[in-house]
Amino acid sequence: MATEAKDKKSTAAKNFQPLGDRLFVTYTEEMERTSGGIYVPDSAKEKPQRGIVQAIGKKVENIKVGDQVLFDKYSGSKLRIEDEECLILKEEDILGIFTN
Amino acid sequence: MATEAKDKKSTAAKNFQPLGDRLFVTYTEEMERTSGGIYVPDSAKEKPQRGIVQAIGKKVENIKVGDQVLFDKYSGSKLRIEDEECLILKEEDILGIFTN
Amino acid sequence: MATEAKDKKSTAAKNFQPLGDRLFVTYTEEMERTSGGIYVPDSAKEKPQRGIVQAIGKKVENIKVGDQVLFDKYSGSKLRIEDEECLILKEEDILGIFTN
Amino acid sequence: MATEAKDKKSTAAKNFQPLGDRLFVTYTEEMERTSGGIYVPDSAKEKPQRGIVQAIGKKVENIKVGDQVLFDKYSGSKLRIEDEECLILKEEDILGIFTN
Amino acid sequence: MATEAKDKKSTAAKNFQPLGDRLFVTYTEEMERTSGGIYVPDSAKEKPQRGIVQAIGKKVENIKVGDQVLFDKYSGSKLRIEDEECLILKEEDILGIFTN
Amino acid sequence: MATEAKDKKSTAAKNFQPLGDRLFVTYTEEMERTSGGIYVPDSAKEKPQRGIVQAIGKKVENIKVGDQVLFDKYSGSKLRIEDEECLILKEEDILGIFTN
Amino acid sequence: MATEAKDKKSTAAKNFQPLGDRLFVTYTEEMERTSGGIYVPDSAKEKPQRGIVQAIGKKVENIKVGDQVLFDKYSGSKLRIEDEECLILKEEDILGIFTN
Repeated sequence: MATEAKDKKSTAAKNFQPLGDRLFVTYTEEMERTSGGIYVPDSAKEKPQRGIVQAIGKKVENIKVGDQVLFDKYSGSKLRIEDEECLILKEEDILGIFTN
Repeated sequence: MATEAKDKKSTAAKNFQPLGDRLFVTYTEEMERTSGGIYVPDSAKEKPQRGIVQAIGKKVENIKVGDQVLFDKYSGSKLRIEDEECLILKEEDILGIFTN
Repeated sequence: MATEAKDKKSTAAKNFQPLGDRLFVTYTEEMERTSGGIYVPDSAKEKPQRGIVQAIGKKVENIKVGDQVLFDKYSGSKLRIEDEECLILKEEDILGIFTN
Repeated sequence: MATEAKDKKSTAAKNFQPLGDRLFVTYTEEMERTSGGIYVPDSAKEKPQRGIVQAIGKKVENIKVGDQVLFDKYSGSKLRIEDEECLILKEEDILGIFTN
Repeated sequence: MATEAKDKKSTAAKNFQPLGDRLFVTYTEEMERTSGGIYVPDSAKEKPQRGIVQAIGKKVENIKVGDQVLFDKYSGSKLRIEDEECLILKEEDILGIFTN
Repeated sequence: MATEAKDKKSTAAKNFQPLGDRLFVTYTEEMERTSGGIYVPDSAKEKPQRGIVQAIGKKVENIKVGDQVLFDKYSGSKLRIEDEECLILKEEDILGIFTN
Repeated sequence: MATEAKDKKSTAAKNFQPLGDRLFVTYTEEMERTSGGIYVPDSAKEKPQRGIVQAIGKKVENIKVGDQVLFDKYSGSKLRIEDEECLILKEEDILGIFTN
């Protein structure tokens, strides 16, 4: 999946550099029971959501490109890349990393 | 119970690493009079709740995996692992540890 | 009364360790004119209330187990031990100590 | 009046130790034109009020027991000692001291 | 006018010591076109107002007794000295000093 | 225009010294297309506005008397000098300086 | 496009110097699929928007004149230069830079 994430970046995110402690994240479509048995149902309001980190600012310390991350649904600033919803988040908004 | 907690982690939480001062917590089902005679009734609104720590971030200082903790009902970000409600909490949201 | 406080702790609070600058407090039933002539009427809304400290976190500096303390009615997180209302408070929420 | 203040303390406040930067204050009844010609009418809403300091916490720096102080009407936590309204205030809530 | 200010202090403010960075200020009655041509109409709501500093706390750095100062209408705590409206202000609430 | 600004100060602002990081500013009447082609229409609500700095406090670092500045419409405290609207602003409220 | 940006500055922004950590930004008209395939639809409410940096304050560290930047729709103070909408933003309001 890290490979898939970098492929995505090659088309959309390669031209965008987040500033400071911000990350550029695309949503993970496969919200179903992944390898770790964890899923976050799309229909659940105000539930955390999952995404893949596509680019990071210089001050991001504990997250790298390709990481699968969990974040609160209402964190960050939403934008759209070639019909895909994306997100600019701050590192402090990331709840954790999936390590499978 | 610490053993039971680690068993739970082996299925659900082993693939999730909380960031910074955050903890990954599952709720304790047995809310009845435990060894210490303390219980937190489920029906009580805005009452603190009890859980078991499944994973901790690198900056968590005074809590370890397996600890039974008390926290306010509305603290943290709720998510769901294999039909079980879970929680991402910050260490400062933990009111105390059950030491039985 | 300090003795009574420690007796209470032996059943209820001995299994709970508050974190950081928090205290575990049980309410004082005898709100009537105590030795110091001070009482806080139960019926008074938003008036401070009185309790006995049962356990303290490591960062609590000026209060010890057994102290009778005064605190604002809406401070802290309420919970219940064997049908008795208890409270987790921060040290900064304690207005003062009765020294009789 | 400093003498009267200490007399009052002997019955009510001698058993209460405010914590940190807090003061234990009783209201001054004689709100009429005192020696300094200053008075604060009781009927005026949200006007500052006057009291006598009965006990102080260890971190109080510029006020001592017996001082007559001015404070905003809605500052602090009210309580009652032997049918007299009292107040727990922080030092920063004290506007000034009457020096007559 | 500085002389007049000190005269006023001799009756009303000589018995009051503001604490910390606070000032004791009386309103200037003559709001009409003063020497500097500046006036603040009384009828204007939420407009700054003008006063004379009668006493200052120990931490006040840039204002002295006798200064004519400008401050926002809703700053500070109002009180009354011998039928004259007065004010306790913090130094940071003072917008500037009239230097005529 | 810098000359005109200093002329204005000679009548109105010469008697007022702003405190700390504050500035004393008069509005610029000629809001039409100035030398730089920039104008801020008066009718536009919540749009920034333009003025001339007449006096500055001792802690003002990057603005000097005579500067033409841009600021948000609702910043600062308004007052009136000889029928002209004026403003006390903090340096941090100044968006920028016109350098024509 | 960096060339176009500097041309714009020559007419409008050359007379304006933002203060501190502020930037002077003009909106990018061509919101359609640019080289990086990223676009921000104008009709989307509360979506981030794109602009070109025309002038920067002395404390701006990571952005330079000519950069194409992304920012939240409601950030900053809007003004108008020769019938074109412009914006004063703080550096911390810039989400990222387009690097194509």
